[in-house]
Amino acid sequence: MEEKKITPRKLAGFWELDPEKEYVFEYILDKIKDVFYKHGFLPLDTPVMELSEILLAKSGGDLDKEIYRFEKGSTDACLRYDFTVPLARYVAMKEGELSFPFKRFQIGKVYRGERPQKGRYREFYQCDADIIGFEKLSLVADAECISLYEDVFSSLGLKCNVEISSRKILFGIINDLKQDDKFNSIASALDKYEKIGSEETDVLLKDIGLNEKERKILLKYIKINGKFVAIKSQLQKLSKNEIFLQGLAELEQIENHLNSIGIENYIYNMAIIRGHNYYTSCVFEVFLDGMRNLGAMGGGGRYENLAEYFTDKKLPGVGMSIGISRLFDVITQNDLIKIEEDKRSKASIIPLGDNLSHCLKLCAKLRKDSVSCEVLFEEKSFKSKLKDANRSNVPFIIIIGDDEVSTKKYTIKNMKTGEQSQASYEEILNILR
Amino acid sequence: MEEKKITPRKLAGFWELDPEKEYVFEYILDKIKDVFYKHGFLPLDTPVMELSEILLAKSGGDLDKEIYRFEKGSTDACLRYDFTVPLARYVAMKEGELSFPFKRFQIGKVYRGERPQKGRYREFYQCDADIIGFEKLSLVADAECISLYEDVFSSLGLKCNVEISSRKILFGIINDLKQDDKFNSIASALDKYEKIGSEETDVLLKDIGLNEKERKILLKYIKINGKFVAIKSQLQKLSKNEIFLQGLAELEQIENHLNSIGIENYIYNMAIIRGHNYYTSCVFEVFLDGMRNLGAMGGGGRYENLAEYFTDKKLPGVGMSIGISRLFDVITQNDLIKIEEDKRSKASIIPLGDNLSHCLKLCAKLRKDSVSCEVLFEEKSFKSKLKDANRSNVPFIIIIGDDEVSTKKYTIKNMKTGEQSQASYEEILNILR
Repeated sequence: MEEKKITPRKLAGFWELDPEKEYVFEYILDKIKDVFYKHGFLPLDTPVMELSEILLAKSGGDLDKEIYRFEKGSTDACLRYDFTVPLARYVAMKEGELSFPFKRFQIGKVYRGERPQKGRYREFYQCDADIIGFEKLSLVADAECISLYEDVFSSLGLKCNVEISSRKILFGIINDLKQDDKFNSIASALDKYEKIGSEETDVLLKDIGLNEKERKILLKYIKINGKFVAIKSQLQKLSKNEIFLQGLAELEQIENHLNSIGIENYIYNMAIIRGHNYYTSCVFEVFLDGMRNLGAMGGGGRYENLAEYFTDKKLPGVGMSIGISRLFDVITQNDLIKIEEDKRSKASIIPLGDNLSHCLKLCAKLRKDSVSCEVLFEEKSFKSKLKDANRSNVPFIIIIGDDEVSTKKYTIKNMKTGEQSQASYEEILNILR
Repeated sequence: MEEKKITPRKLAGFWELDPEKEYVFEYILDKIKDVFYKHGFLPLDTPVMELSEILLAKSGGDLDKEIYRFEKGSTDACLRYDFTVPLARYVAMKEGELSFPFKRFQIGKVYRGERPQKGRYREFYQCDADIIGFEKLSLVADAECISLYEDVFSSLGLKCNVEISSRKILFGIINDLKQDDKFNSIASALDKYEKIGSEETDVLLKDIGLNEKERKILLKYIKINGKFVAIKSQLQKLSKNEIFLQGLAELEQIENHLNSIGIENYIYNMAIIRGHNYYTSCVFEVFLDGMRNLGAMGGGGRYENLAEYFTDKKLPGVGMSIGISRLFDVITQNDLIKIEEDKRSKASIIPLGDNLSHCLKLCAKLRKDSVSCEVLFEEKSFKSKLKDANRSNVPFIIIIGDDEVSTKKYTIKNMKTGEQSQASYEEILNILR
């Protein structure tokens, strides 16, 4: 009976890696998790779906277009588009049971119903770590989140630089200009500065309705960057605004904490604005060392109140995120990663003649001795088994024929060097370990 | 401004663990993954959504009620309800690039729109490992999948028993009775035998339209269980049917492979049927040793053709799955797991007086030396910090006051024994490692 076949295809813009690449991706995730654990964070894994009422609480209905939303029975639900709203929902639900500051990380997939483009996915991985306080939260939390980056990147054998700024300082300046009501549109224009440059940013600010003097101050402001001592003296000349000075004092405290922690891979850069308007004070972005042109590989900042839509309790927080889908693309395209302690198969065992049973025994023994390996058990020619082994990038093959069984000396071949030798079980174990 | 708050709540039937429990869950997943790697499997991570055309190819529209389906723009998509269809889609798409036998595992969430009940989730974790052949697949694959269970469970410090059967043998018997067209309903009735017993199974078979003689044969059949030699001789008396004998010969080969691999934790039990009709030959289920009454913790079997809806190529496979959401419930409710190499925080560092900076330095140093730890930096009374440390189950606290800073001897307290001592950095490192 001939049936019509359905062409197998994946949804466009959805993340899917071939197993060899997926292994590398999981390796990266494990390294990142280990750093979070080392810093005292624990994992949270919220559902992929949330009630629409919850997920859209903040935005009214604005996000609808970008969101996967559906109804089932009486349930109106959406796929999560970030981890912040689920975190807010979780903390608000469990507030009475949690110890604060509450430190959690979450790694998983999020969904955006946008048109897929190069480097833009509809389903992609997000990786967040947040520290949530109850009513107050020490500025050590900001320094802690910033310092996570160095550990995360160095665990992957990479160097990174963090650039720090403050939306409170920016707010102070805009407050000086008496343009508080235009804060969001000004911030959004300044956020484009690094991409479009001075002149075009000036045009955007003009469009918002700022006069030349105001625009000059803002453009002078976002060009300030450097070590703390340097930016402090430049900033102090700009304003005496109360909120401005508060923001600067906060940065100074964070600077002191970063010094205590002992990290050095950061500067201050007032051009770092961050898109999200829920950030209220310190904000930061992270770049791969020597590859700033690739854009930020993550960022974060402080927010005043995590869960205001769900609870009266004030829950200030700081969060850092890593754009791991993007980071993975960059890492693999530039071959930047070295796998230590590879968990993949170390050896393919190939039976010659009637020695399958002996191969299965040897394989089981090696696995008991913690060696990853497998028998190429399918009946194929020796040549096509060699081809399979080559294709799988397995570092060694072990060949077992009648001679090997009788002498208990196995033929082991290094697939990279081509080197081949006869070895006892103990010798094989030493080679594979 | 007083705003109305939205009550924070999670979708009913969706899996969410508190971070301390989530840590244990991830620990279990990591152990399981390590076993899959040791056996030469690599991970696959398919999208949470698939095109409805793909996901419902097999079932027509039957599954609609149980499925989360939605339309967005011109896209008609569903949330996956298992990993088998996504695997079939993937292998059919990549068939020309893959080496066969293709071995992959997948661990992740799946979705069923059923009414949530105790122990039944709408979103829950699935954990599958499959071996897919091209046109043919050696019976070593069945033995390999069965043998995974022992390694998985023993890596968690647990003992398990696998029970093996064959749908081909059952088909042979039903073929003898000339009831081929009723195979699915007979299999489904027999599948209930272990729950409802002989008499009620007999009633079900009667309802299907089988006469007394036929029912007797089937009831005799499903009561056969034991070691291979024993079941072989009992089964041989039941039939000379060709398919029956083929099924038995296959089990005998699998038995031989299992002997070569050297596992012993299994028996044969003809009452194992497995619900899914896509299984065509060997099937199996796994039980916790001494806790068979809790039901199967996983199962699997051989299927003739993985991707018949998507490709003309015949792709036979064997799969094993572990019900990890269920297994986790059982493990935690019965306190069955011991965490080795705990990655959680080993010490909370508590500053007394003005010594926060010193604490941050010490903490950074310990982390560099691979110790997970954290500073309780929030301004609180010493008493409430102690309470926080107690609540977090951290094994040690380190207290740093002026004396500690000047003598460089820190106060370290074992939170379980209450033991307290003064220790140098090196001594602390030894204690915490």
